[in-house]
Amino acid sequence: MSSFAPKPAEGVATHSTSIWVEFTTLAAETKAVNLGQGFPDSPAPKFVTDILQNISSQPELTAAHQYTRGYGHPMLVDILSKIYSHFYGVKVDPINEVLVTVGAYLSLYYAFLGWINKGDEVLIIEPAYDCYYPQVKFAGGVPVPVVMKIAEGATSSSEFKIDFANLESKINEKTKMLVINNPHNPTGKLFSRQELEKLAEIAKKHKLIVIADEVYEFHVWNRQDMIRFASLPGMYEQTISIGSAGKAFSVTGWKIGWAVGPKNLLEPLKAIHQNCVFTCSSPTQMAIAEAFRTDWPKFLEDPENSYLATGLSKELRGKRDKLAKMLEQGNFRPIIPDAGYFMLADYSHLKDALKLATDKDPDDFVFSRWLCREKKLAVIPPSAFYSKRESKLENSNMIRLCYFKKNETLEAAEKILQKLSHQ
Amino acid sequence: MSSFAPKPAEGVATHSTSIWVEFTTLAAETKAVNLGQGFPDSPAPKFVTDILQNISSQPELTAAHQYTRGYGHPMLVDILSKIYSHFYGVKVDPINEVLVTVGAYLSLYYAFLGWINKGDEVLIIEPAYDCYYPQVKFAGGVPVPVVMKIAEGATSSSEFKIDFANLESKINEKTKMLVINNPHNPTGKLFSRQELEKLAEIAKKHKLIVIADEVYEFHVWNRQDMIRFASLPGMYEQTISIGSAGKAFSVTGWKIGWAVGPKNLLEPLKAIHQNCVFTCSSPTQMAIAEAFRTDWPKFLEDPENSYLATGLSKELRGKRDKLAKMLEQGNFRPIIPDAGYFMLADYSHLKDALKLATDKDPDDFVFSRWLCREKKLAVIPPSAFYSKRESKLENSNMIRLCYFKKNETLEAAEKILQKLSHQ
Repeated sequence: MSSFAPKPAEGVATHSTSIWVEFTTLAAETKAVNLGQGFPDSPAPKFVTDILQNISSQPELTAAHQYTRGYGHPMLVDILSKIYSHFYGVKVDPINEVLVTVGAYLSLYYAFLGWINKGDEVLIIEPAYDCYYPQVKFAGGVPVPVVMKIAEGATSSSEFKIDFANLESKINEKTKMLVINNPHNPTGKLFSRQELEKLAEIAKKHKLIVIADEVYEFHVWNRQDMIRFASLPGMYEQTISIGSAGKAFSVTGWKIGWAVGPKNLLEPLKAIHQNCVFTCSSPTQMAIAEAFRTDWPKFLEDPENSYLATGLSKELRGKRDKLAKMLEQGNFRPIIPDAGYFMLADYSHLKDALKLATDKDPDDFVFSRWLCREKKLAVIPPSAFYSKRESKLENSNMIRLCYFKKNETLEAAEKILQKLSHQ
Repeated sequence: MSSFAPKPAEGVATHSTSIWVEFTTLAAETKAVNLGQGFPDSPAPKFVTDILQNISSQPELTAAHQYTRGYGHPMLVDILSKIYSHFYGVKVDPINEVLVTVGAYLSLYYAFLGWINKGDEVLIIEPAYDCYYPQVKFAGGVPVPVVMKIAEGATSSSEFKIDFANLESKINEKTKMLVINNPHNPTGKLFSRQELEKLAEIAKKHKLIVIADEVYEFHVWNRQDMIRFASLPGMYEQTISIGSAGKAFSVTGWKIGWAVGPKNLLEPLKAIHQNCVFTCSSPTQMAIAEAFRTDWPKFLEDPENSYLATGLSKELRGKRDKLAKMLEQGNFRPIIPDAGYFMLADYSHLKDALKLATDKDPDDFVFSRWLCREKKLAVIPPSAFYSKRESKLENSNMIRLCYFKKNETLEAAEKILQKLSHQ
């Protein structure tokens, strides 16, 4: 053993191992059918990869292969500003009001680190994507969970409800920020205009910065139903909206995301960006810019031929219906999602039948491990999306499945689920 | 004006605007011949872009278009571990001892943030790449500059010397880290074995973590002359070595870099990575892996046909000689570099002739702005690479030029320099 054993920075201890490490590794080791991590295993849209192919065929294209503008490739921020000007109904300036990052993930990291001081409180609606919590803590902040409730026996993601009085009761002078994830992961809930207006009212009253994580904004069955938070009256100036090209164009591995918001809200993010990654990948930024330039006019004028307006959602909706049917046949109770590419499903019948050995982990962890190891089906335990132990234990009767998978994968899962129904 | 004006996190104030923002913007505005920012404007190597083209032609390739392993694409960490095992003479484990990041820049950010606590001191040999300073400060650390001296009238980068007694005199119980940039930017100095052994001796004696920023490791005229710090006896276990595919394969815009080091030294970096970007771009990681797999066997067995062994350095050396000659003809005194793609040059004769208006900025800032605005030649003022005002003022008689530019660019610069000689 080496005598050289320095101590890491104290802040590092806030980063506990993420659930993805355990369950991605387990899925790989067991060679399970993987409905766990959220990415499509079907081919990426050819019109998108064709653009990257074209760019790669031109080694002399400096704009594609060498450093580009730090805060975002000029072509990409230009088209993003047009798109979000349309959606938000304000003029979004491409230079000052758009920041391109390495996935939406990095925008979230910057938003917390750039705005949260030690002790500042951040309201997080739970269940919540599991990176918010450690990111807020790393920034020195205090995540304050607001747990959504769902009625017993519910079968629709819209039945997840925020208790607004409860939310408002948690606000004090330390409260600085509210995180809204819409469409919502892991539930698949699409917030209604009424719900969002209620959140806007609270944000306005208490002068909260709103982080609108809208990475699944194009994964909705009817695009009119997606209400972007920054489009609500007065909300643009209080909101950092976060989007993802990896999600929009089904190329999660390209890792291009962005933050959009008023200049003053983006400035701290840009300041950190300048000394963190400085600039993002040029070829993929350029390809995404071109993909938007191809699809956006269709989105507006010819939606039937637009990937973002209808192509993506049609594909997804078919897969959603297929998975829901499979789960029902396997005696699970699916919570049918209104958006996104995840579905929750109650597995209580199996829990009872199996008499799973309980341990310190919530039941859904035990069940998900069993399902992966014994039945070769990888899923994610949703209690990972709650921060407090009591919330985890109260919400451990479901599993989360990703249905954006090719037919072969879904069919392999179907066979496993059919056998389970005879358990 | 909005009534909504929250205050950013305190740490953000450590990020002052970087020199690149001013000089890149100025170069663009003035449409100057750009020898400023360090990237090739010549075509990227075709064998590298061809690989990305091939990957992009396969939308069904999940490993290329969807999320890959968080700490690095399996193909890339595998080949990197082979390469650095060879260079360092130790067995580098691909899973635990390599972390792929968004450029070397992000590895540096993680290394400081992961290891530096408030008040910890970091020794930085100056002139120094200008991101170290704000990165260390953002982590709460104190950058401690150790300024290299160069003899008056010197014409070789090897004449930049560290005063080791001075360096050691700055070490106290707060000193945690030493940053070594080799080959060195902006001087083009390649540290000798003797110099590196002296630094190793100091690092060992004082138990310092060494950050070996070796992004220009393949930009040397004779590859045998490049001594990687982690290859020195006992140094692997104290060193985080940082490399760059953008530099190695002349595709700076692809933004793929890495940190290599013993498991315990990388762990804090990985912990932050998990909540910062989580994973890097898959298609470019895969393409870089394939580029190494193509070139590395040639590097070992057939160096004359290897890009990294000889192709890159032959191209660079020709351009270096061309720029040096041009500068001499323009009555500058070039400091001939032994590595990298930058060259310093003394412009004192013009400073005297021009009687530049002095202002609060060091002379080289004033001169560089004049050169860009009036003569349409963009360069970088090297005093930006010193942290203390007195060091800036003492080292403001040079400009930094990047010579990794296509012939048309160098020829356009030549015309400007020729006219300057008659100033």
